[in-house]
Amino acid sequence: MASPDLAPVFDHIEANRSVFLDRLIAYLRHPSISAENIGIAEVGALLVEMLTEIGLETSLVPTTGHPMVVARWEKAPGKPTVLLYGHYDVQPPDPLDKWVSPPFEPTIRDGRLYARGVGDNKGQHFAQILAIESHLRVHGELPCNVILLLEGEEEIGSPRIAGFVRANQELLKADLAVTADGPRHASGAPTIKFGSRGVVSFDLRCRHASRDVHSGNFGGVVPNPIWTLVHLLATMKNEAGEITIAGLHDDVEPPTAEDIEAIERLPLDLEGFKQGLGLKRLDAPADRPFYDRLCFQPTLTINGFHGGYGGPGTKTVLPNEALVKCDIRLVEAQDPQDILDKVRAHVEKHAPEVEFIVEETGMQPSKTQIASRYTAPLRRAFVAAHGEEPLLIPAGFGSLPNYVFTKILGIPAYVTPYANHDEANHAPNENMTLDCFQSGIRTGAALLHELGQLKREG
Amino acid sequence: MASPDLAPVFDHIEANRSVFLDRLIAYLRHPSISAENIGIAEVGALLVEMLTEIGLETSLVPTTGHPMVVARWEKAPGKPTVLLYGHYDVQPPDPLDKWVSPPFEPTIRDGRLYARGVGDNKGQHFAQILAIESHLRVHGELPCNVILLLEGEEEIGSPRIAGFVRANQELLKADLAVTADGPRHASGAPTIKFGSRGVVSFDLRCRHASRDVHSGNFGGVVPNPIWTLVHLLATMKNEAGEITIAGLHDDVEPPTAEDIEAIERLPLDLEGFKQGLGLKRLDAPADRPFYDRLCFQPTLTINGFHGGYGGPGTKTVLPNEALVKCDIRLVEAQDPQDILDKVRAHVEKHAPEVEFIVEETGMQPSKTQIASRYTAPLRRAFVAAHGEEPLLIPAGFGSLPNYVFTKILGIPAYVTPYANHDEANHAPNENMTLDCFQSGIRTGAALLHELGQLKREG
Repeated sequence: MASPDLAPVFDHIEANRSVFLDRLIAYLRHPSISAENIGIAEVGALLVEMLTEIGLETSLVPTTGHPMVVARWEKAPGKPTVLLYGHYDVQPPDPLDKWVSPPFEPTIRDGRLYARGVGDNKGQHFAQILAIESHLRVHGELPCNVILLLEGEEEIGSPRIAGFVRANQELLKADLAVTADGPRHASGAPTIKFGSRGVVSFDLRCRHASRDVHSGNFGGVVPNPIWTLVHLLATMKNEAGEITIAGLHDDVEPPTAEDIEAIERLPLDLEGFKQGLGLKRLDAPADRPFYDRLCFQPTLTINGFHGGYGGPGTKTVLPNEALVKCDIRLVEAQDPQDILDKVRAHVEKHAPEVEFIVEETGMQPSKTQIASRYTAPLRRAFVAAHGEEPLLIPAGFGSLPNYVFTKILGIPAYVTPYANHDEANHAPNENMTLDCFQSGIRTGAALLHELGQLKREG
Repeated sequence: MASPDLAPVFDHIEANRSVFLDRLIAYLRHPSISAENIGIAEVGALLVEMLTEIGLETSLVPTTGHPMVVARWEKAPGKPTVLLYGHYDVQPPDPLDKWVSPPFEPTIRDGRLYARGVGDNKGQHFAQILAIESHLRVHGELPCNVILLLEGEEEIGSPRIAGFVRANQELLKADLAVTADGPRHASGAPTIKFGSRGVVSFDLRCRHASRDVHSGNFGGVVPNPIWTLVHLLATMKNEAGEITIAGLHDDVEPPTAEDIEAIERLPLDLEGFKQGLGLKRLDAPADRPFYDRLCFQPTLTINGFHGGYGGPGTKTVLPNEALVKCDIRLVEAQDPQDILDKVRAHVEKHAPEVEFIVEETGMQPSKTQIASRYTAPLRRAFVAAHGEEPLLIPAGFGSLPNYVFTKILGIPAYVTPYANHDEANHAPNENMTLDCFQSGIRTGAALLHELGQLKREG
């Protein structure tokens, strides 16, 4: 049962169900594709207008890329300040022909709203905005202090968020960060994530001869770059699935007792998972627990391998160059630059003729302890909004720029996904269930309420 | 100095230098592209007319594919019969824009004739035809018996030659086979080859999930087909360059003393070879002699490896399928089916989830002993035509269907390449030097003369 302060806010949210949905639909009609610089300026301006009207002190902060929207309400002295992060840019909608309804004509079917960006991330940060608005409409004030940070470049890898946060630490001074992004757990249960894996990407390129040659006339004397790369890769990860690059695991922090308890509680329908992807087996090593792999282990994924002939029939060519693209997912407390240095040293040792190419600096992992101060109020907020305890996931599987909060601002950071697990983000027919949107607004409202029960620390 | 019988034939060839060249040019103007079935029927008919007019008993023998041209002169009882093999089909001329002069408009530049098929193989078998014609014009007869077999499907892998030879063993009964095809040794010296490597091709295909997935959300639990193939390949050939498939070397015949002596005599400009291909090193193993690798060792070449993302930048995808294409060059006395069985057993043992795909039956290796009966007359023919001893190459590097002579007809088979080493066969600007064409006719004439000095065996 909601407290006296929260109940009328929930009532307001319920009473405005269709109005809020209409406003979300209107918001989704505006494309804001960062990769193609389509609609970014328009949606940035629209947000400034919307947030100012709600009663937040709002500014559009220019960067060398797309601008940041920063909105604040800080009239609750002695109460914690929560930094709510989201992003107003969306993925390109290609392939268009796979969409049942056009990506920027939001359409409701079977209790879901279909549109590009509805789950990732407009529907989620709009729920946060409506939660703020509902508190202000009902009570004329917020229970705690809020800084809302919406970036416009998340879908192109957040290249400027770290620099922006580093340069604006005073402006963004907060006690915790909360990101509503990504899907809930596959079981459908509400979810809190305490971290995200980092990532680095690199290419391995090998070229021997100056041109392709005939495998009969030259096979045995001319070296083959595909073999060179195969043998190099085989030294980087063994058949048992263990990464064998020297020092790569040096900084891996083992899971805490709370972490292990949390993943043991996570629902797991392994047969359903395998069936859904048509898998006959999981990746090696066979004996490692499912969630342990996703939360606490770095991975070395070959994203692509291309060289020589790939068409029908046979072509007895000995190719002269080949390219491998890889990524490594990092766990706390691996450092992207340190890991890249170790991979580079490994390549130089085992195959100095292979070119090691890095184009991006990568993203740091992030981890907040389950035993941190704001876990309990977050859990209470979920219980208030959903009527059930959220699942606790110690480390998100994919990568989010949460490290800017944990490592640059030095505050705990939580991810509270509002979207359904099958939101199809980055894919055609992206969607969010109407229930998820509604419960997202409630969760956002409950979160502000619960934080308002605390005193600012220190 | 040529013998009394051969000298007037050489004179005739010299006197007709420009006439013969013009006739070659006329022949080359007719495309005969087996892969596209262009001009095959026309050139087949043209050959029948030409060979009949010269005085050979000629027929166009239909097959389920392109017809065989068989022409014979067998009026020298007690003398050996030589089966002269060649092919009247040519490679497609693509890419057309890389040709300095159009492929079917033969053009002379700097002492070379440029046209598709001039080296591979029209210029070479036409030299054999002119050698026969010259003997007949000068002496009214040939010094030995001749069967000329010209196929029209060599450039699409000679799919019917074995069946044809097997079904026509009486028709093709001969004492030796001689093929004028391919380039001379890179040093420019005249060359006799005593064998050719065989070849088998196969694909390795691996598919795990039913779709690509995100490396962050699924990395660690969903298996990666590229890793599966990398680890499988690493069990098939080690970093030292040794093929490690069980039993693969079982049937490899070690080189004879004559073989080793022959390769030790072959000129080798290793620095020039590496420079020409921009190579920093030869293929492993570093200590194996250059010609030993090309003549006596099987090879396992990865022709292509394709899976996942290969474009610019990064894409953190965990791909769901990948394909590897390979060929194995076989040496005497490896059998294609036996080798494919061994590779299949290896794949089934090490990676049963990888699909092993074979579309073609492959080609057997072929080897004739250097110490065989016709080596001496062939060497004398080269000395007569060129004024220098030919190089003896125990086994050709690439694959030719010579096994149909050695293994089906059971006769020794020799390859006497007439084309310059830089003939650019299968490539734009295919060419043959005018000198090579002329010395080819002389070699063909001298060969018939030398064989005429022998009695038919048995």
